[in-house]
Amino acid sequence: MINETKTFEKHESEIRAYCRAVPTVFKSSSNAIMIDENDKNYIDFFAGAGVLNFGHNNPKMKEAIVEFIQRDGVIQSLDMFTDVKRDFINTFVEVILKPRGWEDRKLQFTGPTGTNAVEAALKLARKVTGRTEIVAFNRGFHGMTLGSLACTANNAFRSSSGVPLTNVIRDTFNDMNALENLRQKMFDLGSGMLPPAAFLVEPIQAEGGVRVATKEWLQGVQQLAKDVGALLILDDIQGASGRSGSYFSFDDLDLNPDIIVLAKGLGGLGTPIGMLINKAEIDSAWAPGQHTGTFRGQGLSFVAGKIGIEFFKDEKFNEETKAKASIIRETLDNLNSKYNKVVEIRQKGMMLAIEFESASIVKEITTKCFENGLIAGACSTGEIIKLIPPLTIEEETLKEGLNRFKASVEAILD
Amino acid sequence: MINETKTFEKHESEIRAYCRAVPTVFKSSSNAIMIDENDKNYIDFFAGAGVLNFGHNNPKMKEAIVEFIQRDGVIQSLDMFTDVKRDFINTFVEVILKPRGWEDRKLQFTGPTGTNAVEAALKLARKVTGRTEIVAFNRGFHGMTLGSLACTANNAFRSSSGVPLTNVIRDTFNDMNALENLRQKMFDLGSGMLPPAAFLVEPIQAEGGVRVATKEWLQGVQQLAKDVGALLILDDIQGASGRSGSYFSFDDLDLNPDIIVLAKGLGGLGTPIGMLINKAEIDSAWAPGQHTGTFRGQGLSFVAGKIGIEFFKDEKFNEETKAKASIIRETLDNLNSKYNKVVEIRQKGMMLAIEFESASIVKEITTKCFENGLIAGACSTGEIIKLIPPLTIEEETLKEGLNRFKASVEAILD
Amino acid sequence: MINETKTFEKHESEIRAYCRAVPTVFKSSSNAIMIDENDKNYIDFFAGAGVLNFGHNNPKMKEAIVEFIQRDGVIQSLDMFTDVKRDFINTFVEVILKPRGWEDRKLQFTGPTGTNAVEAALKLARKVTGRTEIVAFNRGFHGMTLGSLACTANNAFRSSSGVPLTNVIRDTFNDMNALENLRQKMFDLGSGMLPPAAFLVEPIQAEGGVRVATKEWLQGVQQLAKDVGALLILDDIQGASGRSGSYFSFDDLDLNPDIIVLAKGLGGLGTPIGMLINKAEIDSAWAPGQHTGTFRGQGLSFVAGKIGIEFFKDEKFNEETKAKASIIRETLDNLNSKYNKVVEIRQKGMMLAIEFESASIVKEITTKCFENGLIAGACSTGEIIKLIPPLTIEEETLKEGLNRFKASVEAILD
Amino acid sequence: MINETKTFEKHESEIRAYCRAVPTVFKSSSNAIMIDENDKNYIDFFAGAGVLNFGHNNPKMKEAIVEFIQRDGVIQSLDMFTDVKRDFINTFVEVILKPRGWEDRKLQFTGPTGTNAVEAALKLARKVTGRTEIVAFNRGFHGMTLGSLACTANNAFRSSSGVPLTNVIRDTFNDMNALENLRQKMFDLGSGMLPPAAFLVEPIQAEGGVRVATKEWLQGVQQLAKDVGALLILDDIQGASGRSGSYFSFDDLDLNPDIIVLAKGLGGLGTPIGMLINKAEIDSAWAPGQHTGTFRGQGLSFVAGKIGIEFFKDEKFNEETKAKASIIRETLDNLNSKYNKVVEIRQKGMMLAIEFESASIVKEITTKCFENGLIAGACSTGEIIKLIPPLTIEEETLKEGLNRFKASVEAILD
Repeated sequence: MINETKTFEKHESEIRAYCRAVPTVFKSSSNAIMIDENDKNYIDFFAGAGVLNFGHNNPKMKEAIVEFIQRDGVIQSLDMFTDVKRDFINTFVEVILKPRGWEDRKLQFTGPTGTNAVEAALKLARKVTGRTEIVAFNRGFHGMTLGSLACTANNAFRSSSGVPLTNVIRDTFNDMNALENLRQKMFDLGSGMLPPAAFLVEPIQAEGGVRVATKEWLQGVQQLAKDVGALLILDDIQGASGRSGSYFSFDDLDLNPDIIVLAKGLGGLGTPIGMLINKAEIDSAWAPGQHTGTFRGQGLSFVAGKIGIEFFKDEKFNEETKAKASIIRETLDNLNSKYNKVVEIRQKGMMLAIEFESASIVKEITTKCFENGLIAGACSTGEIIKLIPPLTIEEETLKEGLNRFKASVEAILD
Repeated sequence: MINETKTFEKHESEIRAYCRAVPTVFKSSSNAIMIDENDKNYIDFFAGAGVLNFGHNNPKMKEAIVEFIQRDGVIQSLDMFTDVKRDFINTFVEVILKPRGWEDRKLQFTGPTGTNAVEAALKLARKVTGRTEIVAFNRGFHGMTLGSLACTANNAFRSSSGVPLTNVIRDTFNDMNALENLRQKMFDLGSGMLPPAAFLVEPIQAEGGVRVATKEWLQGVQQLAKDVGALLILDDIQGASGRSGSYFSFDDLDLNPDIIVLAKGLGGLGTPIGMLINKAEIDSAWAPGQHTGTFRGQGLSFVAGKIGIEFFKDEKFNEETKAKASIIRETLDNLNSKYNKVVEIRQKGMMLAIEFESASIVKEITTKCFENGLIAGACSTGEIIKLIPPLTIEEETLKEGLNRFKASVEAILD
Repeated sequence: MINETKTFEKHESEIRAYCRAVPTVFKSSSNAIMIDENDKNYIDFFAGAGVLNFGHNNPKMKEAIVEFIQRDGVIQSLDMFTDVKRDFINTFVEVILKPRGWEDRKLQFTGPTGTNAVEAALKLARKVTGRTEIVAFNRGFHGMTLGSLACTANNAFRSSSGVPLTNVIRDTFNDMNALENLRQKMFDLGSGMLPPAAFLVEPIQAEGGVRVATKEWLQGVQQLAKDVGALLILDDIQGASGRSGSYFSFDDLDLNPDIIVLAKGLGGLGTPIGMLINKAEIDSAWAPGQHTGTFRGQGLSFVAGKIGIEFFKDEKFNEETKAKASIIRETLDNLNSKYNKVVEIRQKGMMLAIEFESASIVKEITTKCFENGLIAGACSTGEIIKLIPPLTIEEETLKEGLNRFKASVEAILD
Repeated sequence: MINETKTFEKHESEIRAYCRAVPTVFKSSSNAIMIDENDKNYIDFFAGAGVLNFGHNNPKMKEAIVEFIQRDGVIQSLDMFTDVKRDFINTFVEVILKPRGWEDRKLQFTGPTGTNAVEAALKLARKVTGRTEIVAFNRGFHGMTLGSLACTANNAFRSSSGVPLTNVIRDTFNDMNALENLRQKMFDLGSGMLPPAAFLVEPIQAEGGVRVATKEWLQGVQQLAKDVGALLILDDIQGASGRSGSYFSFDDLDLNPDIIVLAKGLGGLGTPIGMLINKAEIDSAWAPGQHTGTFRGQGLSFVAGKIGIEFFKDEKFNEETKAKASIIRETLDNLNSKYNKVVEIRQKGMMLAIEFESASIVKEITTKCFENGLIAGACSTGEIIKLIPPLTIEEETLKEGLNRFKASVEAILD
């Protein structure tokens, strides 16, 4: 049976989505290459929605987890202590926290998905402040469970809740005027707006279309949060793990977030994990067990994730990311001048978005990409293609992928 | 460094909980045995909160996933098609759905945790009915994200939300009078109560203390749901995967749920997974991508989970479970008559709860269990010990574990 | 222009309701008689929905308010002090509060309608307890503004809100089993139900169809409220002012409510007023001006209302009410045995309801009543006729009205 | 007993407010003069919080209602037809609606207070649009019942609700930038903001401190409402009835509101009334009885209110108002230049606000006013004095009142 998809059509829910854009059955994958049952290869510019920063089946990680399994390591441990969890924590503290002077911060392992980590962050912020409201921004994406979904902006996702999405103040991302207006409301006893528990912000809105917040605006948000006694929560789920050319996507912005939310790339090999980095004085508001979950102790994610963190021991990996980012930008930059249906190109590190005139053009282009052996995904409300190859992609594969992408755009727009 | 826990105390969040009850560092585990860094062994009667039905590091599963990793199988695939996902689905359809006449039902892979699967089920029920309210029951546990948490009963968990938990009608589990009263309200135009979108029920409340719903009551709930045009959602997250001596915990109750929620044991080896089984006419209400998530395509869970499902190809495994369940019951039954501080013993299959007079006694006993080399956990509001060893536990390990348990109880209560 | 209704049909909102059942233009009224522009007289068994306990244009009250107007008394005073407000308060304290040992309670004048008074009571209960939930009962009616409407039971009214009606726990009126079940939930940490701020109860559900709570149940509600630290709020808006044969409808039930809500009959002549009677220790939670409103100081209502209160200086008025109540009951009692379409007759004092098999029968009967010169209104979900003549109705007018009613019933059911 | 206030202190709720600022017992009042029990006279620049546009005990109105009472007119009629209600409607149609081309609009009598009328308007808007959210503005005041309170801005009032105030989008009054930002959010599918049911606006924010919206901004609000399919609701409760020198406060702004909310001055003599003016196509969404209430048919308010409306038969009354408004402005204008603690003076017609540096200064000044025989009230968050004498005030009384006011200001600020 070669590339048989009937099983899915017959037995899987109508809700399935990505597989409709790439309708083939994959059987193996390695770094930036996926291979389907017909042995056709695809260059992966989607990377599991930003999870696979270190590529599919990263060899070091494979080796480590196979060894771990073969020695009967503890795969599922709730939040009990294990050797590999300790190694993971120690490595994260040494490589990531200490260089930033954040070694006093506390790591909280939540349910192993981004949305669960966001929900935990919201609870903590509300608990610490005794307040209910969260400020969230247009084009923001924070997950699909009810608490996170209330913070997610996209109306197509929101409408699926079936109940009111409450306790969120919606504002405009990266807009200094809107921020100033919000400040006025928050300090006006006659505005009807109470001070919020937290501002929840993505330094780079990835799913929102690679919208990169300015330093000025983020600093303004941080200052307003401080002034009204609210927390600053940075959702760096897709932006972190080196994607922007530094471990965190906001390393160059001189920010001091109260809570950082991580997931996706943190597990290294694509197995789930969710983690908060909390300031100690905030973390102490938790009582034991207040936000619990079965899958918080994932041995495989600790083992492979530790190797992922070690990529950042020196600046070499970040430098390589920046170099590849330049290749991408140089290759695609002229699309903007060549086609008036290309509205804008936005990039930070190896995350690049091309905004087209309409969602229908995007659909044609991504379909053509698939034919040409490239996996590229739409985001936001459909009018944007986001390119996020593995950071470890070989230079020549990257160039080949970019060629396939350009050929696909040309096929549609020329 | 032997059994060093300072890393956790220094760097991990105050919220950590289970590790406070079993304060040692585990390094390996096999079937029902966990071994710490001092080489002390523990018999595991908690099984990762009901995940490890097939034991730690089940040999067949280990072999399969090592082979999968070594051949560069697709570990993270969003909801794209992969060979191993197809195998998982086909096996589930053949082994579980077909014998029940349910081969037309649709499998929906949600974010890989129970709470995410519950959130998806709630969305679907609200979408299908155009209604908002969910009926949920006392002692019920459905997860910690905001939508699920609104259905979870325990006030200690609920209080952490920081915002109102809305759109849930709370009622009493397994109480025919309460059900009749609810029926009256729902058909009374002057009651102020609108028909709900769904009834969300655990056939066995596991976390709630192994409270086993009667067939009469569950049939009554199903009938009321039907009469008011609501869905019946069975949360079998902890009860399924053979725990009760049959694949589903409600196989003997002649029920026809609209949605079944699975997670925990479904992944086989303790890697995360979440899945709904939806009636086709209900599933068709979904539009593509309405409830999405990064980690819905977990290759390792498909590979190991498939092997888990195959345990149910014939009745042998279920018979063994029932036999072991009898051993547990026979060994512990006399505790009830011997100690008046033992309030009640409740059991279905290999899930057994002993309700004590107070949470403080339970704490003493579980601490003693840990000393004696047994991992046993409290549940509900702390006054109950729940014993859920791996189903695959060897008979002699089971007996040894029961001896350790009895010795611990005697040490405290004698 | 005789009895011209075109103005209303052309210029008044579609929402108009009572006028559709009695489609004539009234020009004057005196005690229990209303006269339309064709000089047809109607006996009024509806009394302005229970406002006109002392009849239309009560002569003593007329005289007093004309004198008040002619001496330029203060008609509108917000909550400033006026002579007539002082007289009203002093009279209420002397005649109503002192005999009950309640002279320490505080009178709070709210916006001049029942719903506004209920809203104020809810705020106070929530403020005192720091809790949010109110327990309210099926068939209860507490008003149409959003806070009150959330407590009102009738789904036809509720559905007009257009937004979720929240923070109310709905339970079953006058049902000891339901009350016991509620008690269990409230003391179970694993029920998901938090202790409420208050129980809001009508001792007699008037709009709900003259459902008279038993002493046992109300005492049970009072005890449960006390046990969970909640307030008992008695909504006696339609039941008080002598309607049941005593000033309060619950005078014979040995209750000690924390807040009593009054409106309707309190103003004497049909001008609006709303008032709470708060226990002093509860009232002290208010800060000045926290629930405000323009029309809290209604001079006309104070002047006429004071005369209304004076009716209760001795027991004579109550005795007369009871005697008339007996006449009503004796006259109508046989309807129940005579017609199987009469489901039940319920009465306390001069409030009597006849429940018929369906709302359509009721509509036919009330239409016939109108033809026969009797104003009688449906209530609850339409299947009930409620008879509430002025308490001051002359005995012969009462008998004539009852004859007209019986004739109307006979015309439809015979 | 002369000017005895002990009754109030002993028996009235702690919530009393205005009487704390004017601690004397009033016994009579005529046009703009109130007289206390010590025969001291006060010039009333507060006019019952904007109710008494035609003065205390307006002689024409007194005469008419005494005649009405003496002929046994129908004082309380629910929403039944009466002769005086018909006269009121016909007069309102002729004098107010026809000249504006609005004779097709429908009049809806709600519960007799502003807050009840606002609640009805919100229900209607939500019903017509099937949407839930209302846009309301900082410094707005719309009432104290839960639905209206959610639209009211002042946090001191909001905090008394005890429950979340939901389904309202808060924005900035009279701010074109904020309006433009709101427009962007409402047309952005990725903003997380759904189109609202209505915009609720006061053309002049009275309680908010006489903030007068510009024509440009109100037209912008109207256009945005139209563009997103929302209703425009103008709350003219305090602004209408001639206060600004025209019947409606927005007559000069070329607006076409879907719903106008009236109360306060509409009843003429200070007896309560509440009314909506609905576009016919909107009004038709109501089903009979969906928003009901006991006190919707107030005969006294119809009789006196009709006379109030007749003041607007020609422009003479409005011209007089404007002339008096000029006197006020001329007299007070120099306060602004003289005292730097006077921040701003704002006026439209006979509603004028003086914003001072702080609420404590205002308290001193209003206390001094009371000593000097002037009733003047603070508004907004306390830092503003609002002057709203009866429109019918004699010129010399007005001047005397202004002198008393200036003397009071000078006494404090000089």
